[in-house]
Amino acid sequence: MSDNSFGKLFRVTTWGESHGPAIGCVIDGCPPRLPLSEGDIQPWLDRRRPGQSRFTTQRQEADQVRILSGVFEGRTTGTPISLMIENTDQRSRDYGEIARAYRPGHADLTYDLKYGIRDYRGGGRASARETAMRVAAGAVAREVLKILVGPELKIRGALTEIGGLGINRARWDWDETGRNPFWCPDAATVPAWADFLEGIRKEGSSTGAVVEVLAEGVPAGLGAPVYGKLDAELAGAFMGINAVKGVEIGDGFAVASLRGEDNADPLRRGKEGQLAFRSNHAGGILGGISSGQPIVARLAIKPTSSILTPVPSLTCTGEEIDIRTKGRHDPCVGIRAVPVAEAMMACVLADQLLRHHAQCGWNLPAL
Amino acid sequence: MSDNSFGKLFRVTTWGESHGPAIGCVIDGCPPRLPLSEGDIQPWLDRRRPGQSRFTTQRQEADQVRILSGVFEGRTTGTPISLMIENTDQRSRDYGEIARAYRPGHADLTYDLKYGIRDYRGGGRASARETAMRVAAGAVAREVLKILVGPELKIRGALTEIGGLGINRARWDWDETGRNPFWCPDAATVPAWADFLEGIRKEGSSTGAVVEVLAEGVPAGLGAPVYGKLDAELAGAFMGINAVKGVEIGDGFAVASLRGEDNADPLRRGKEGQLAFRSNHAGGILGGISSGQPIVARLAIKPTSSILTPVPSLTCTGEEIDIRTKGRHDPCVGIRAVPVAEAMMACVLADQLLRHHAQCGWNLPAL
Amino acid sequence: MSDNSFGKLFRVTTWGESHGPAIGCVIDGCPPRLPLSEGDIQPWLDRRRPGQSRFTTQRQEADQVRILSGVFEGRTTGTPISLMIENTDQRSRDYGEIARAYRPGHADLTYDLKYGIRDYRGGGRASARETAMRVAAGAVAREVLKILVGPELKIRGALTEIGGLGINRARWDWDETGRNPFWCPDAATVPAWADFLEGIRKEGSSTGAVVEVLAEGVPAGLGAPVYGKLDAELAGAFMGINAVKGVEIGDGFAVASLRGEDNADPLRRGKEGQLAFRSNHAGGILGGISSGQPIVARLAIKPTSSILTPVPSLTCTGEEIDIRTKGRHDPCVGIRAVPVAEAMMACVLADQLLRHHAQCGWNLPAL
Amino acid sequence: MSDNSFGKLFRVTTWGESHGPAIGCVIDGCPPRLPLSEGDIQPWLDRRRPGQSRFTTQRQEADQVRILSGVFEGRTTGTPISLMIENTDQRSRDYGEIARAYRPGHADLTYDLKYGIRDYRGGGRASARETAMRVAAGAVAREVLKILVGPELKIRGALTEIGGLGINRARWDWDETGRNPFWCPDAATVPAWADFLEGIRKEGSSTGAVVEVLAEGVPAGLGAPVYGKLDAELAGAFMGINAVKGVEIGDGFAVASLRGEDNADPLRRGKEGQLAFRSNHAGGILGGISSGQPIVARLAIKPTSSILTPVPSLTCTGEEIDIRTKGRHDPCVGIRAVPVAEAMMACVLADQLLRHHAQCGWNLPAL
Repeated sequence: MSDNSFGKLFRVTTWGESHGPAIGCVIDGCPPRLPLSEGDIQPWLDRRRPGQSRFTTQRQEADQVRILSGVFEGRTTGTPISLMIENTDQRSRDYGEIARAYRPGHADLTYDLKYGIRDYRGGGRASARETAMRVAAGAVAREVLKILVGPELKIRGALTEIGGLGINRARWDWDETGRNPFWCPDAATVPAWADFLEGIRKEGSSTGAVVEVLAEGVPAGLGAPVYGKLDAELAGAFMGINAVKGVEIGDGFAVASLRGEDNADPLRRGKEGQLAFRSNHAGGILGGISSGQPIVARLAIKPTSSILTPVPSLTCTGEEIDIRTKGRHDPCVGIRAVPVAEAMMACVLADQLLRHHAQCGWNLPAL
Repeated sequence: MSDNSFGKLFRVTTWGESHGPAIGCVIDGCPPRLPLSEGDIQPWLDRRRPGQSRFTTQRQEADQVRILSGVFEGRTTGTPISLMIENTDQRSRDYGEIARAYRPGHADLTYDLKYGIRDYRGGGRASARETAMRVAAGAVAREVLKILVGPELKIRGALTEIGGLGINRARWDWDETGRNPFWCPDAATVPAWADFLEGIRKEGSSTGAVVEVLAEGVPAGLGAPVYGKLDAELAGAFMGINAVKGVEIGDGFAVASLRGEDNADPLRRGKEGQLAFRSNHAGGILGGISSGQPIVARLAIKPTSSILTPVPSLTCTGEEIDIRTKGRHDPCVGIRAVPVAEAMMACVLADQLLRHHAQCGWNLPAL
Repeated sequence: MSDNSFGKLFRVTTWGESHGPAIGCVIDGCPPRLPLSEGDIQPWLDRRRPGQSRFTTQRQEADQVRILSGVFEGRTTGTPISLMIENTDQRSRDYGEIARAYRPGHADLTYDLKYGIRDYRGGGRASARETAMRVAAGAVAREVLKILVGPELKIRGALTEIGGLGINRARWDWDETGRNPFWCPDAATVPAWADFLEGIRKEGSSTGAVVEVLAEGVPAGLGAPVYGKLDAELAGAFMGINAVKGVEIGDGFAVASLRGEDNADPLRRGKEGQLAFRSNHAGGILGGISSGQPIVARLAIKPTSSILTPVPSLTCTGEEIDIRTKGRHDPCVGIRAVPVAEAMMACVLADQLLRHHAQCGWNLPAL
Repeated sequence: MSDNSFGKLFRVTTWGESHGPAIGCVIDGCPPRLPLSEGDIQPWLDRRRPGQSRFTTQRQEADQVRILSGVFEGRTTGTPISLMIENTDQRSRDYGEIARAYRPGHADLTYDLKYGIRDYRGGGRASARETAMRVAAGAVAREVLKILVGPELKIRGALTEIGGLGINRARWDWDETGRNPFWCPDAATVPAWADFLEGIRKEGSSTGAVVEVLAEGVPAGLGAPVYGKLDAELAGAFMGINAVKGVEIGDGFAVASLRGEDNADPLRRGKEGQLAFRSNHAGGILGGISSGQPIVARLAIKPTSSILTPVPSLTCTGEEIDIRTKGRHDPCVGIRAVPVAEAMMACVLADQLLRHHAQCGWNLPAL
């Protein structure tokens, strides 16, 4: 069914449940001879790792990744790269309620409706824990892009809104995103978010957020007509991240109220004669193909469904019940979505790069 | 590359350029023995057909679809269904400027950057003309859904905003969408839109819009974990429609400012004991799998890039030029996106239905 | 389902039934800017065309191919190439018996068992007529290989055995294959085959045959481990040709009685220092990857199932019946399988070439 | 690239090298709620395990399989099933020669030509060790077939020829295959094979063989036209097994010398009115679709390339060298190919079963 794979040529298949013995992924199609070690992957996992501030789940996982295949003497061999992380914090606990009732907003109900069975421990396959493997695959994709395109290709993400509190874009500072627990690019907004989230956390509530991902230095020509469009694949990749309910490219929903004159990105020659756009309403993609401008995407993340306020629901046998979701949860799951969104961007770009090369990367003889 | 195919089991491959001899598609995987004739497809194409009001392009195409294979004595045979529409209005004209320069906002530039060649006539493969085949494929998908699920499955679309002018949702009337040239569900909004668009048209400008698509009667269980998520596939399908810059499922970007309590969809038993949600913030999808609630999606459509105001651009040889795009264009391309969005919804649902059946549609013996 | 597509990056989807209005194919993933016209395809179709001697079916088809998309001003554009051939000889006839009974050895029965419906006219989708589109796609693949690899890559096929009468390989002459109606490379064998087949034809019987296909000048490195093996994909492609019951690579079934010493292909340096094998038992493929030696494959073709001798069978309603298959049939369908086998070789090689380029065709910086 | 995956709906991806820390596979698309435990898989691995007689390699591997995901409380959940076997016998040894030179007949050379790098330890990814995961996946496929079709579906394999010594088919006894180290179905042939192989082994030579695989109780209707043909997929699956050089279905290459009358499988009604074929030249497949008769396939396996007789070859730096391959090898690798061929048959049938169900497994309303 390939329902657990993404990418066509840089193909990632993930497996594993939240409370099984391990989670992992297999990456097929990676070019050979690229330097790769666990040390290239671990730092990206560490950025996503839970339990690093009081604003994310207190689950403690070492998240130590192992490379089990596809790398020999420090280089990729072109064969499948198998990555695995053992689950260490499978806290022995009483799954009583989650086992016998449906937490509203979670996939408990729909997994049961679909499969007639579910691994209820920690959400099983539907747990955000699975996204660790996307981050690991994204780290490999970053290596591919670094070697095959160059270090000028940069993928970075930030949180631009929490619970209706937006940043001031004029103060955007990428360095700042690494200095606070929110990936916030605007230092002046950090205290307000901290106050707000502290309140949310204490109330046992949760809040939504907006993530923005930017890819700079992307070569022109990635993507393809109709169903291989770069923006279409990004939209699918982002909407497939847990809790995402909306995706925008470039101006996004703001285009609905724009006129053609305001949405146009005029084109001129730059100082060295290169293409130079005067604006980037398109978010770096025209007709589904990258133009060389920065690719800009935004993701809307819903508030974590696990809250302390009781919500009406049903048990698996159909009795009415009110559920309060206790446990180790994120007041704003959007925070941990930032490294995941970056990783998906990296995977999609690596895949599109190989696909573009396959079809168009030929030095044709003069014909 | 499969870049011109979508769907896994209900698989649609489209081909053709705006001004070539014909456009077409091949549908592979359709179940056998379903009644199907050209009469089931043509009405949907007629809804999308241009030139039906002064608010859409004046290109005149009969858009007569022919079934070339896969149907025998009025029923599908399980073999590939080939559909074709001949292009009749390939107006002989001077392609001078479009051939030698890049229209801002169009795919002219990126096709050249990618392929080093492009069929410039009417946008070639990047033309919205290609979407006629999506509508045709969508019509077949509707037949599949009608037989395999039932007539209670309904897919309908509407325009809910043009140029910042939104409808009043309290006045929503599906019947009204068929009575005005905008697929507007709110009769009281129609005159305002007509005035506004008439102004836009006269100025040679264009405007953005928001499309909403609703699928009711969708069985629970469609979709899959991780990369086969129903919302992820819908997002990819919608973002792949020409001019779409944003996609939302359920509450969409509004979730960013919601708290968990406000985003929850409480669950109770209905009068006949069935599942009954008290709200539908999720838009009918939980954990990537349909819950049985209506599926709700919105698409942001950018203003047509073809406008009369000159916009700075470059010729193919790199000289600076200002471009005014004359010709037969839509002041609001969002209008014609409605039937296309409905068709993509139908295709995705038909595909997911077959996939669900393949894996989960087994009557297991008591084990 | 993609059951009517082959290839991953050079992807061919065929459609059409024997007696429908047309047959066709869509080729997706072809590199852009390659010269291509109908004149590059038609000669290959003419080689396969029936009715050219008394040893093949007397069905008369012009088999005029049209390019409907993907080519602009004589060059490929990188978008899907749609090819179509209209069926002209849909002789109006009485399908009485074929419509209501199962011809032994044909797919009539199994199509009905699978789909519950079949287009019985001329075998419908199961007709060898479909292979015309494989030949057309193969012609495009040959253009891809000619430009991207060079004219030294040559794909040629021959018939090496008919009804137990083998050729003398010592007399192999490729030029001879074009001079007789059997693709026989051994002039001295031609009269014997002609006599034998004339007898078969007069008796209303049929006979099996062996086809050999050779690809010379194939670059080393095509193929991949495990399931993308070049020999595995060739075997699938060849076994998928109508009436094929066996496939061999290199020494094929003869290896069963060989010792390791006899099967080894010793390796030395040639005069210019290049790799030089002293034999080619492997048929040009080691570990699923091309070695640079000629690729050698053989296909066993069963005798046409349509014969005048009555064979016991059943009607669709289950009554016992004896069937004599009248009509226009090939006494040795192996003859017409030669161009089809060549075409499949070309398609598989073009596909593997693009796949190899995608993963391994990178000039890595010194690392 | 998916070059390490097989199957479309029952999709298996394998990973791992001979001397890496582990090998494994991920199975995606398995129906939910099927009973599955390591105890269902281990016995099949034990049958394939090396070191069980003096006629197979003396490598000692426990081959203990672990299920890491996709199974909960003894049943499949519909999510990816991850299987892993740790490599325990990675004997610390001197890889000197294999590291710096190309063993004739092995993939050493072509891996280097393709990837520019190879894991030379024990053949790396090209090692027959990878086939352990095919056997594991095949064991899961057998569970799927057992539940979804029934225990009457039986897949069994045997060795029918070693080094030119064939069995007497009149003495075929399936029980016998489990009593000797050769999977030989003819007890009277066993001593001759033992003598012959003992000689081969002592001389440090090797020999080829023929494997036959039979699948009984396969439902009619599996397979599909053109490229999803059941025989085509089987041919690809079998040719992809290490050392296979030929594949036959039904009468195979013998058809080349048959007449239509001799190749026909007459059809009659059986005692209970069912379809009853009088012969099975077709090997259970007509037009690429199963007919309900037993599916019969044969595979030709080349002699192991690792022999003690020196064979001319080259070092990686191009110097001429003569290679004797010492180490723990199989005198007849065909023996261990039997369980692998069975497993591939099981995987292909499980995949085709799900695909057939997806498209044709609908109870249509009376139309």
